[in-house]
Amino acid sequence: MSDSAKMLTLRPIDRKHQGAMPDATTNASLALSPKHPGPAVVEIDERLFVASVGKAMKVLETFDKTTASLSLSDIAIRTGLGRSASQRFIYTLERLGYLDRDEQTKRYTLAKKVFRFAQSVVSSNTALDAAYPAMRELAEQTRETISWVEVDRADIVIIATIASTHISSINLPIGTRFPALSSSSGQVLLGHSAPAHIEKVWNASHESVPMRTQAKNAAEMMRILEAVKAEGFAVTEKNMEQGSISVSAAVHDRAGRAVGAINLSTLTTRFERPAAIRDLAPLVAAAAARATETLSA
Amino acid sequence: MSDSAKMLTLRPIDRKHQGAMPDATTNASLALSPKHPGPAVVEIDERLFVASVGKAMKVLETFDKTTASLSLSDIAIRTGLGRSASQRFIYTLERLGYLDRDEQTKRYTLAKKVFRFAQSVVSSNTALDAAYPAMRELAEQTRETISWVEVDRADIVIIATIASTHISSINLPIGTRFPALSSSSGQVLLGHSAPAHIEKVWNASHESVPMRTQAKNAAEMMRILEAVKAEGFAVTEKNMEQGSISVSAAVHDRAGRAVGAINLSTLTTRFERPAAIRDLAPLVAAAAARATETLSA
Repeated sequence: MSDSAKMLTLRPIDRKHQGAMPDATTNASLALSPKHPGPAVVEIDERLFVASVGKAMKVLETFDKTTASLSLSDIAIRTGLGRSASQRFIYTLERLGYLDRDEQTKRYTLAKKVFRFAQSVVSSNTALDAAYPAMRELAEQTRETISWVEVDRADIVIIATIASTHISSINLPIGTRFPALSSSSGQVLLGHSAPAHIEKVWNASHESVPMRTQAKNAAEMMRILEAVKAEGFAVTEKNMEQGSISVSAAVHDRAGRAVGAINLSTLTTRFERPAAIRDLAPLVAAAAARATETLSA
Repeated sequence: MSDSAKMLTLRPIDRKHQGAMPDATTNASLALSPKHPGPAVVEIDERLFVASVGKAMKVLETFDKTTASLSLSDIAIRTGLGRSASQRFIYTLERLGYLDRDEQTKRYTLAKKVFRFAQSVVSSNTALDAAYPAMRELAEQTRETISWVEVDRADIVIIATIASTHISSINLPIGTRFPALSSSSGQVLLGHSAPAHIEKVWNASHESVPMRTQAKNAAEMMRILEAVKAEGFAVTEKNMEQGSISVSAAVHDRAGRAVGAINLSTLTTRFERPAAIRDLAPLVAAAAARATETLSA
């Protein structure tokens, strides 16, 4: 689903905070941590690293949620690769079927071929399979946006979504990312992690996390996660034009690992926090419990 | 959603018939047409084509719907790149965040980062936005698998899907491809194309298309598409362990272009063809009409 006049869109975190590769193509270190780059810098072995592949991926990554089409000049400027190099990568990616060119506007868009990668990831997801019937039931009960969410490093990623049928709703297309520690789904998923892992995620988190969670350090964050774990669900709010509110519960596999979360996102115009906790959280927790039962059966 | 014991999976067409690049990285021509390679061969300008990018994409493409994880040896064999080159591309893609490595099994999987590409394509899809409420209503009416489908060259691609809540159902994850001319959604979408375009698609189609459509040539195919156009919907069947049956209707934009199709897929154990035409086709056609109205409003 996408931005339209009727839908609000949560703003995903900046590209450069997504564990992407701002400098990977031009120098030999990959900054994985925007807040504390020191410990998280990953050295690149230049004998093994194929720089042109990094540049090509940079061209593909230039197309984001808010940018459907780009001209050669746009790409050259945004990637910093220059016009001549950009032209070679665009030509290559177009020939390989990853970019489409509009003959009239001479602008480029990502081709539908990029979907095959998402297909590969989703197709082998047995946890999502097990959770889907419960998610669909929850969608029919509430008519709200229901998503399957997993943790990826310091972010959460929307892996599957059933959009709301309300006229105004939260729009969460697959692939959308948010910082894990300030997201309800990240909190229920990380609540089950070892302290050392939580500290690592805290150190690698987006700078908005302390402000949004009101935790000043990793120890305070752990106390928040402990409370979430005891509760069995998490509720977080975002202030936008209209406020959004998000309720999540974790799904566990047979080994007890939290493999993903079921998330319900709605607007504070429909549910203020107390109403979300009273009316929505039990439904979300019940859906996650059903999914856990299916997955561990 | 993915393969599970309870779900049937339609087999997507072979990788090498997906308009992929079997030879693009090793020689200078891209065969886009498996049936009639002559006219559809695209020349590659080797001064512009960056061969290493083709090889890296080949590594990513090796992970498909049925292959969640691969070892270095698997990748070397499947891509034909050899062990040493494979290692460099794997290293590069892992550093860029596109591959994950399991420390225990030493096997690789596609990382969740690949989702950002799908997000970019889906987020800017105003037709899907307009169609989604009608799709969700259709899903609630029928409990069957409902998809948004678009044409990409000679294939159709599943862009969004709402999975069935039935225990046995057709599993159509996003990114799934089928030859357009033998798919109900391809038939409703191409029924509105110019004869010259249909002939081009016929020539580029997978070899299964004549058998499945029982059309011997492009002219016969056009008569089938004319009939579909007159009907307002298409119904196709596939023989699998259990038979599947698929009903589609096209959604049009303000300019009258068929921009996508709403597809319902079910099993012949629930709906034989006459029942599908009587009970399902009117619902699918009504959903597409509502989506068309929203899109052209």
